[in-house]
Amino acid sequence: MKHVTIRALAKELNLSVSTISKALRDSYEISEDTKKRVLALAERLNYMPNPYASSLRGRRSKIIGVVIPEVADSFFSLAINGIESVVKEQGYHVLISLTHERLANEQSILHEFQGGRVDGVLMSVSRETVSGRHIRDLMEKEVPVVFFDRALDEVETDKVVTNDFESGYAATQHLISRGCKQIAYLTISENLSIATRRMEGYLKALADHQLRSSGKNIVQCGTDAAFNYKQVKKLLQRKKRPDGIVASVEKLATPVYQACQELSLSIPGDVKVICFSNLEIATILQPSLTTITQPAFEIGKTAATVLLRALDKKRGKPAQQQVIIPSELIARESSG
Amino acid sequence: MKHVTIRALAKELNLSVSTISKALRDSYEISEDTKKRVLALAERLNYMPNPYASSLRGRRSKIIGVVIPEVADSFFSLAINGIESVVKEQGYHVLISLTHERLANEQSILHEFQGGRVDGVLMSVSRETVSGRHIRDLMEKEVPVVFFDRALDEVETDKVVTNDFESGYAATQHLISRGCKQIAYLTISENLSIATRRMEGYLKALADHQLRSSGKNIVQCGTDAAFNYKQVKKLLQRKKRPDGIVASVEKLATPVYQACQELSLSIPGDVKVICFSNLEIATILQPSLTTITQPAFEIGKTAATVLLRALDKKRGKPAQQQVIIPSELIARESSG
Repeated sequence: MKHVTIRALAKELNLSVSTISKALRDSYEISEDTKKRVLALAERLNYMPNPYASSLRGRRSKIIGVVIPEVADSFFSLAINGIESVVKEQGYHVLISLTHERLANEQSILHEFQGGRVDGVLMSVSRETVSGRHIRDLMEKEVPVVFFDRALDEVETDKVVTNDFESGYAATQHLISRGCKQIAYLTISENLSIATRRMEGYLKALADHQLRSSGKNIVQCGTDAAFNYKQVKKLLQRKKRPDGIVASVEKLATPVYQACQELSLSIPGDVKVICFSNLEIATILQPSLTTITQPAFEIGKTAATVLLRALDKKRGKPAQQQVIIPSELIARESSG
Repeated sequence: MKHVTIRALAKELNLSVSTISKALRDSYEISEDTKKRVLALAERLNYMPNPYASSLRGRRSKIIGVVIPEVADSFFSLAINGIESVVKEQGYHVLISLTHERLANEQSILHEFQGGRVDGVLMSVSRETVSGRHIRDLMEKEVPVVFFDRALDEVETDKVVTNDFESGYAATQHLISRGCKQIAYLTISENLSIATRRMEGYLKALADHQLRSSGKNIVQCGTDAAFNYKQVKKLLQRKKRPDGIVASVEKLATPVYQACQELSLSIPGDVKVICFSNLEIATILQPSLTTITQPAFEIGKTAATVLLRALDKKRGKPAQQQVIIPSELIARESSG
C-alpha cells in the first residue's frame, strides 16, 4: 500500500499543506468544519502521522514489536522473557502482537507497525506465511526486522534459529536406537521452514538406518485441538500401528497422550514418544516426556541483541547473519 | 509524572511555541542545530507528541493495550483469545505488554500508554500492585481502563471478574466432602484481590465445617518455580502432613505433582489436590487434575466488549459496573 502524505491530503481537499498540517494538530487557527473534513479524509486514506518520523534522527518510539503466532506455547513465553531481559536494560518496551497462525493477521499487524509505532520488530512467522512481501514493505520503511525461530528464507535479514534439521534427525535416531521400526511424524505445517527442516532430519535419519519412509506416516495436524486429537487417534488405530512418534511441536504432545490413554496403549510399551517441547510440565507427565528442548530464552535474547545492534547502527545496512543455537535432546521415560 | 507540553519546551529553550512545533515536525524552516537542541530536550523531559491527541475527536489509534503479568499461563492466553475475538471485528489491534508481576514494570507501561499509543487498556494487575495511582493517571488522560480477572478495588472503573470467594469455598468444600481434615492453601500473593477472596472462601468453608484453620497451612509461593517447589516439599514433609491441598493458581499444580512424586506420596491416596487452572493438560496428568476452571475466554471477551462500549461513548463518564462470570469445579481423579 502506498504511503499517504500530507501533500496528498492537501491536493485531494484543495487546501494548503500548512492548513492540513495545522488541522491534524488541532490548531486554533483552523475551523472545526475544516478539521472534520481533513480528519475524515485522513481516516479514509489511512494516513499515518508518523509521530516519530525516521527523518527525525535520534527520535525513537523506544518500542520493540514482537510478532508471534500465539502465546499458549512455552517456547514463545520463554523467548519473550529472553527478549525482555535484553531490551529493558536499554530502555525499550516490548509490545506483543499475535497472528494466531494467520497470514492476514500478520500482514495487518506489520502494516500498523509502518506508522512509526515501533523501532524494530522481532518475529516468528505464521504457519501460513509463504511469501515475505509484507515483511519487506516494513523493512523498506526503515523498521529493521529480525526473525527468531520461525524464519522466512526468502527475506534477507538476520535470523536466529535452532538446528532444526539436526534436531529432527536426533529425535528420530533416538527412537530408532530404542528399537522403533515404524516411526510416524506429526507436523503442523507444510510451509514453515522449521517444520520442513525437522522433517528433512526425520527422513534422513530413516534413510541412514535403512528404514522405509512413507507419506502415510507423516500426519498433518493443525491449530485445532479436537482435529489434532482425531488425527492422532486415527494414526494409532491403524492396523499397522506406528511404534514411535516424533511430535514436531509442543502442542502435539497432549493429543498423543490423550489418544494413548483412550486406546489403552502404553507409552513407551506400545508407542515410544519424543516431542519438541519446552514444557516445564514434561517432567510430571506419566510417563515423563522425552523432549527436544529448544534454547527458547537464548533464542529470544540473541534475536533482541541482534536487533538492538541494528538499531544502533541507524541507517547502516543491517548485516544478514544467521545465528544457530542448538537444541538439546532430554531422554525421559516416554521413549523407553 | 507531569505531562510535558510544547509550551514547557519553548519556555526552557527560550524559543517560540511555533519554532518548537516546527522543529519537532522536522520543518525545513528550522535549522539543524535548533532541531537537535529541541529533540535533546524533548527526549530528556520525556515529551510525548501525542499524535492521536484525544482532542482530535474521532481520530483514534485503533489499538487496545492489554497489560498482564505473564503469558505462560493458560488463563491469560485464553483471555487474550476472548479479547481478540471481539476487538478485531471492530477494526482494532491488540498489543500485549507484560509486567512479570512487577509494579515498576506496570507503572512504566501505563506511562508509555499515556502518549496516545492506545485507545483503551484491558488489564490484570501485578501481584505487587496495591495502589492505583498509575492507573488513575492514565484514566485522567482519557484512556479508559477495564480490569479483567485481577482488579484493584480502589480504582473506580469497570471490572470483569469471576466468583473468587465462592470458588475458593467450593474448592475447599469439595476436599472436605472427600474426607480431608487438614487442608493447606497455596497462594502467590497477599495483595491480589483474587488471592484474598479465594482465601476468604477457603477460610469460610473450613469454619462452616468446624475445621480449624491455621496460618501454618497457608503457604506463600511466588514467581520462582524452584522456590515454589521447595515450599510445597517442606509442607508435605511436615510431621502433621496436610491431607488436602487447594492450589490457588495454575502454576502451583506442577510443584505439587513434582513434590509428591519425589516424596512417593500418592495423589489422591495421601494427598487430595484441587487447583485453579485452565490447563488443557489437566486431563492427561496422572492422576488427572481436579480443577476450578475459570471462564477465561468469556472474561476476556466481556472485558473487551465493556471497553469498546466505553470508547464508543467517547467523552461520557464510563459506567462502573462489575461483571461476575462464575467458574466451574471439574472433579477428576486428583481429589479422589
